Amino acid sequence: MINKDAVEQSNDAARAQLAADYDALGGHLERRGIDIDAVKAKVATYGVAVPSWGVGTGGTRFARFPGPGEPRDIFDKLDDCGVIQQLTNATPSVSLHIPWDAQPAADLIAKAEEVGLRFDAMNSNTFQDQPDQAHSYKFGSLSHVDAATRQQAVDHNIACIELGEQIGSKALTIWVGDGSNFPGQTNFTRQFERYLDAAREVYGALPADWTLLTEHKMYEPAFYSTVVQDWGTNLLIAQQLGDKAKCLVDLGHHAPNVNIEMIVARLTQFGKLGGFHFNDSKYGDDDLDTGSIDPYRLFLVFNELVESAERPDFDPMHMLDQSHNVTDPIESLMTSAMEVQRAYAQALLVDRTALKGFQEDNDALMATTTLKQGFRTDVEPILAMARLEAGCAIDPIAAYRAAGYRAKVAAERPALSGAGGGIV
Amino acid sequence: MINKDAVEQSNDAARAQLAADYDALGGHLERRGIDIDAVKAKVATYGVAVPSWGVGTGGTRFARFPGPGEPRDIFDKLDDCGVIQQLTNATPSVSLHIPWDAQPAADLIAKAEEVGLRFDAMNSNTFQDQPDQAHSYKFGSLSHVDAATRQQAVDHNIACIELGEQIGSKALTIWVGDGSNFPGQTNFTRQFERYLDAAREVYGALPADWTLLTEHKMYEPAFYSTVVQDWGTNLLIAQQLGDKAKCLVDLGHHAPNVNIEMIVARLTQFGKLGGFHFNDSKYGDDDLDTGSIDPYRLFLVFNELVESAERPDFDPMHMLDQSHNVTDPIESLMTSAMEVQRAYAQALLVDRTALKGFQEDNDALMATTTLKQGFRTDVEPILAMARLEAGCAIDPIAAYRAAGYRAKVAAERPALSGAGGGIV
Amino acid sequence: MINKDAVEQSNDAARAQLAADYDALGGHLERRGIDIDAVKAKVATYGVAVPSWGVGTGGTRFARFPGPGEPRDIFDKLDDCGVIQQLTNATPSVSLHIPWDAQPAADLIAKAEEVGLRFDAMNSNTFQDQPDQAHSYKFGSLSHVDAATRQQAVDHNIACIELGEQIGSKALTIWVGDGSNFPGQTNFTRQFERYLDAAREVYGALPADWTLLTEHKMYEPAFYSTVVQDWGTNLLIAQQLGDKAKCLVDLGHHAPNVNIEMIVARLTQFGKLGGFHFNDSKYGDDDLDTGSIDPYRLFLVFNELVESAERPDFDPMHMLDQSHNVTDPIESLMTSAMEVQRAYAQALLVDRTALKGFQEDNDALMATTTLKQGFRTDVEPILAMARLEAGCAIDPIAAYRAAGYRAKVAAERPALSGAGGGIV
Amino acid sequence: MINKDAVEQSNDAARAQLAADYDALGGHLERRGIDIDAVKAKVATYGVAVPSWGVGTGGTRFARFPGPGEPRDIFDKLDDCGVIQQLTNATPSVSLHIPWDAQPAADLIAKAEEVGLRFDAMNSNTFQDQPDQAHSYKFGSLSHVDAATRQQAVDHNIACIELGEQIGSKALTIWVGDGSNFPGQTNFTRQFERYLDAAREVYGALPADWTLLTEHKMYEPAFYSTVVQDWGTNLLIAQQLGDKAKCLVDLGHHAPNVNIEMIVARLTQFGKLGGFHFNDSKYGDDDLDTGSIDPYRLFLVFNELVESAERPDFDPMHMLDQSHNVTDPIESLMTSAMEVQRAYAQALLVDRTALKGFQEDNDALMATTTLKQGFRTDVEPILAMARLEAGCAIDPIAAYRAAGYRAKVAAERPALSGAGGGIV
Repeated sequence: MINKDAVEQSNDAARAQLAADYDALGGHLERRGIDIDAVKAKVATYGVAVPSWGVGTGGTRFARFPGPGEPRDIFDKLDDCGVIQQLTNATPSVSLHIPWDAQPAADLIAKAEEVGLRFDAMNSNTFQDQPDQAHSYKFGSLSHVDAATRQQAVDHNIACIELGEQIGSKALTIWVGDGSNFPGQTNFTRQFERYLDAAREVYGALPADWTLLTEHKMYEPAFYSTVVQDWGTNLLIAQQLGDKAKCLVDLGHHAPNVNIEMIVARLTQFGKLGGFHFNDSKYGDDDLDTGSIDPYRLFLVFNELVESAERPDFDPMHMLDQSHNVTDPIESLMTSAMEVQRAYAQALLVDRTALKGFQEDNDALMATTTLKQGFRTDVEPILAMARLEAGCAIDPIAAYRAAGYRAKVAAERPALSGAGGGIV
Repeated sequence: MINKDAVEQSNDAARAQLAADYDALGGHLERRGIDIDAVKAKVATYGVAVPSWGVGTGGTRFARFPGPGEPRDIFDKLDDCGVIQQLTNATPSVSLHIPWDAQPAADLIAKAEEVGLRFDAMNSNTFQDQPDQAHSYKFGSLSHVDAATRQQAVDHNIACIELGEQIGSKALTIWVGDGSNFPGQTNFTRQFERYLDAAREVYGALPADWTLLTEHKMYEPAFYSTVVQDWGTNLLIAQQLGDKAKCLVDLGHHAPNVNIEMIVARLTQFGKLGGFHFNDSKYGDDDLDTGSIDPYRLFLVFNELVESAERPDFDPMHMLDQSHNVTDPIESLMTSAMEVQRAYAQALLVDRTALKGFQEDNDALMATTTLKQGFRTDVEPILAMARLEAGCAIDPIAAYRAAGYRAKVAAERPALSGAGGGIV
Repeated sequence: MINKDAVEQSNDAARAQLAADYDALGGHLERRGIDIDAVKAKVATYGVAVPSWGVGTGGTRFARFPGPGEPRDIFDKLDDCGVIQQLTNATPSVSLHIPWDAQPAADLIAKAEEVGLRFDAMNSNTFQDQPDQAHSYKFGSLSHVDAATRQQAVDHNIACIELGEQIGSKALTIWVGDGSNFPGQTNFTRQFERYLDAAREVYGALPADWTLLTEHKMYEPAFYSTVVQDWGTNLLIAQQLGDKAKCLVDLGHHAPNVNIEMIVARLTQFGKLGGFHFNDSKYGDDDLDTGSIDPYRLFLVFNELVESAERPDFDPMHMLDQSHNVTDPIESLMTSAMEVQRAYAQALLVDRTALKGFQEDNDALMATTTLKQGFRTDVEPILAMARLEAGCAIDPIAAYRAAGYRAKVAAERPALSGAGGGIV
Repeated sequence: MINKDAVEQSNDAARAQLAADYDALGGHLERRGIDIDAVKAKVATYGVAVPSWGVGTGGTRFARFPGPGEPRDIFDKLDDCGVIQQLTNATPSVSLHIPWDAQPAADLIAKAEEVGLRFDAMNSNTFQDQPDQAHSYKFGSLSHVDAATRQQAVDHNIACIELGEQIGSKALTIWVGDGSNFPGQTNFTRQFERYLDAAREVYGALPADWTLLTEHKMYEPAFYSTVVQDWGTNLLIAQQLGDKAKCLVDLGHHAPNVNIEMIVARLTQFGKLGGFHFNDSKYGDDDLDTGSIDPYRLFLVFNELVESAERPDFDPMHMLDQSHNVTDPIESLMTSAMEVQRAYAQALLVDRTALKGFQEDNDALMATTTLKQGFRTDVEPILAMARLEAGCAIDPIAAYRAAGYRAKVAAERPALSGAGGGIV
């Protein structure tokens, strides 16, 4: 973890400036009729889960370029995740990917306690073959034509639930790459029937207080069709399985130009919004840092969430899901968690009474201006003050760099070589 | 209508060549184990509805360039549609758009009988304001914030049903342009609630043997959000309304890259595929001639339809919906109807037993090759022979041109001027 | 024009709050080492041209819903444009569209002086047919297969230059809709050769101090191919014609997902960036209000412009080009002009020395954070103070509404009826 | 290689049917005024290069699922490529990727002679790090900020030329993944200047009779910007470097909806079309089998090539570039090579005199119908007869399977395990 003195030192350099900025913003918000401290209080309790796999360097099918100090296992990963939470207070939980992170529950719990984290949703993996696996997922998993392969995938998902139960998780997220690369390769209907049958088995093994999150994705790794290709199919799954089944929305898994915030609204309206994988993208499932490409889109998603906050039983799960190919993953995750907080804070600033009035008057210009006023506000002082008051860093990147954490773990963790080969 | 002698004369010029081509193809198909006459028989009974508005020249917001002999009213339009059916035998029915085509039922019936046509689905219009209209649809129709405007839209749809009942239609198609141009302009959820309430009223007025078809579209005329933006929302509507409510798929109304044939499969699987608007597109809702841009995509849609042909209660409606900006609309509609027939005939040729086997073996290459063998076959002789045997034209375009129909109606129908102004 | 007292009254209500906000922001920027007054000074001299056609209500091929007080001619339009400049000081010039705005030069000049405006680039129109036109543009204009049609289009462009010279314009913008709707309809190469030949004729008529701006667009009104479909073809045109020929970038004229700011950089690097049509879009050429959908993209474009500001002979023209379908066009144009100013002000705040350093260190995270810090800053007080000091409105929308301008012109200008017909 | 008897046996089973089909098609074409033997003769001399890396199973960042008998090195790969050519006569040459295929020239030449192949363009690789590499390409290669890294990339390209010269290649293809993942990460202009400087060095090392092919790609592996992002930038490169520099078009490297055949026409018109990487795609750079998704698009590209065939100095290089994730790569490459031949044969059938006439008459409908008549024709008998007459297989897939080649090499080449890990 990061040395507390390093954090303090970093904060000392910025404390006075933050106080001035916070006061200035507070004054401005007061003139808009908003209590800055109330906003700060909400931000302070907001958290987004970190994916365990996110602290390793990502890559593409062409290559992966590891950085120094790559985590060797889930325990190293939890160390890294602990740093993110220590400096930002924005990421209180970690989401595990099985079998990558499969370890004895007691060890996982102990390590999580040590680094001050909880466990978020469990993630199963039936898009890769493991060395000792009986049946290959080359042609699918839950929707495979072969019953034994489907059963293997079902069993793996149930094993994920079982481990999750031991470590305090309350949800299983299923993403499958099943689909096809050629017209005619699969029969769409029979494939989806098989998927539903298998998913029902997994659903049947779900504890009463768990949620099953299914995730849609337009394409990749399948390049002609994907069995859960969009929110329409995802909704059908959740409807077919039952009340504990809900839809997970990954911001990068849609067709070009799609209005994602509207999908969020629809799923919310029908009680089927289960959670998010936050990231950003320009082209496909680019898995870029949240808010790095289109921050207004992120804000518009949070606008829907704040709008629906008072709905009964509305409590979608929030997780980052990114691939950090050219940055220090810890830095990207800290920045992204803060971007999520930023969008949330901005959405909290929207004058919803005024907005509703403009909507009812068909005053499109003032409605959109009202929304944008929230987005336009620089809420950084609110986020920074919430961090400072939680004992974290005003400027987490600066503190992290000053503390030399990366160099320290690089010295402990062997450099990866030959990992840059890629798959073309 | 077209002079029968002109058709005969045109056919005489091509008859021998067709016979030779038909025999050659018959021999080839026999070697593949397919009876050409059986395919021809199926094609001969296939029909796609023509949209009444399709026989006028279309345009864009920038301009419209009318051609000679533009139809002046629904009776002129029915004349033109009659020609299409006379020459192709592929378009036995016409779909009306109200109020554009609103005329006394008896007159419509009489004219339809005269030109040998039936009436397909009725189409309502709440995306434009009519001169004498009490409430404007500028900010929406069925989903408008104002109850009186919604009621006006509901009443209009019910009036469409009533006229439809008198003329033998069995379906109402609703497409609304409702949506928004700015983030925040509308509340997605409340807007959709209003839409559903209004649609329920229309549904309530539906005769027992009618179908309500709702049509989704990603964008245009609304450019930020559209209330029925995709098949997911369309499915929710059909689910909420009841068994007589189904989804209409327009091939040009989807996001870029979307797998449309898969949407067709999903809606079919859950009993909600109601019908099609056929056309083709490269960029957006281009409304180009069916099969003119991506004929394989059209074939893949028909592959799904043939695959599902034996499902109980599976009988989606087929209609062309195109904008003919640079061609003679009659020629485009004849060609497009034949393209739809072509895709159907090609899909009939697929060896489905072999295909299923390859799918079960995960033999992607042979599965896709099997599918493509159907597409690759030049079925023109089958279509032409079916036309000839029905007393139509072997080459409808040649016959139409030879008959001089366009010149004749141009002499009767005044040229439109000043219609090219456009809306920028 | 707007009554000055109304503006004063509106300003009085906001003056104290603005002073406080400006001071607060000034303090914050000072802590970042930035002099707020220097930024304000730059913003105060920045202007974007208004399109004359933008003050009328726009529409789609489906319908147009006019608002009250639609301008009847260019003189009404100049009145409306004068209001925009009076309240914002951000739009000192107007761009005319010929023949829509063709009037005697003396009258145009007199009216422009009256309302305090200059004339920006001239726009020709060969995408519509005019009532008295010898040759139709249905199948193209500058690239038409028929020489006489091409000559007519050339002559029209030269006439635009001649009128422009008389009223002080220094540029001609050519956008043509030429293309095709079907594969095979045109020969791409011969069509482009014809375009180049015709464009050379227009270029030959260009005064020495004029610029010829050609505009690319992916599609619409042509839906299979467009002769100037992208910046690559646009660049070829500018290269072929000569030094006075440059490329105009409309933000809405690109393929989905395209990195527009990079195109701006490439054209700049090779001396061929001629100007902009600012607007925003989510799907196609939606012509939505600038900055309303993706404000960060607008900022990234301005980041390129500020980055290149010191290049010799770098002076692209800036114009809004939007379609206002659901808002008061004056309000949309004021808001959009301010959004352009906002992006400019934000780009001025970027610490370019730090940015360059991070780029050279491959410190992607700090580079993007540095850029975003500029974007994140709420520069509204700078824009508002610049307006106030220029005698304009702190809140132009509020002032405009308070002044009752729309109601006043609605009383003078007859309501349009029957204009909502649309082209489907 | 494949046992000749197995091929003969396979051919015997199909010979009579082919003769009948060929005669039937010949008769049909004769009725259209086309000499089938002349078309066959052209097809018989047509060839497309095979990529050495294409005979291994591809994958995605998520996983790779190897098949049996994966080639271990370039010699195994050449064996596999030899089989493709032996059975199809459509792939007379192989394109090497360095350093993957770097071996002594004499050994390469000997092996190529053994399997009856020539060497097509050389491909350099600066998108991955090799184990012994001094400088990493994590942040770019030819455009890297660091001069030593750029030099390393330049030197590697020159080494590729040197090896290529020894083995009879006449072209170097450069594709770099250089770009950025974050706005601000790179300065677009300086990055492109560096690219051009480095490319000039490579160009300087080019033998007089060589061509330098540069390849553009919209995105992946870089997800915000790519230095050679589109044909516009690619054209600038070719213009800056000189006459021996031309543009390579990979069908999968464009923005959604882009009209690729038009890009082909533009590059041809300005003498800069250097060659192709054929494949197909639905979403991004999916690298699917050529013609498997949109065969009409492939035909439209070949329509341009046949249209330009008489241009002086027009001789673009043709290569397949695909990723075979779920099929036997040899089968996919054989099928794809035949699809390229098919598109070529179909384009040869177009009545170009008629087409030109319709274009000049603005007869869009007949122009597109004329084009499509070529596409619609089932030319399989022509391709098969050309193969048979060249001593190859009427049905290469059937012959290949019957010969048991895959099982044979699977027995010789060790199964890959642990290769399915993927990069997420």
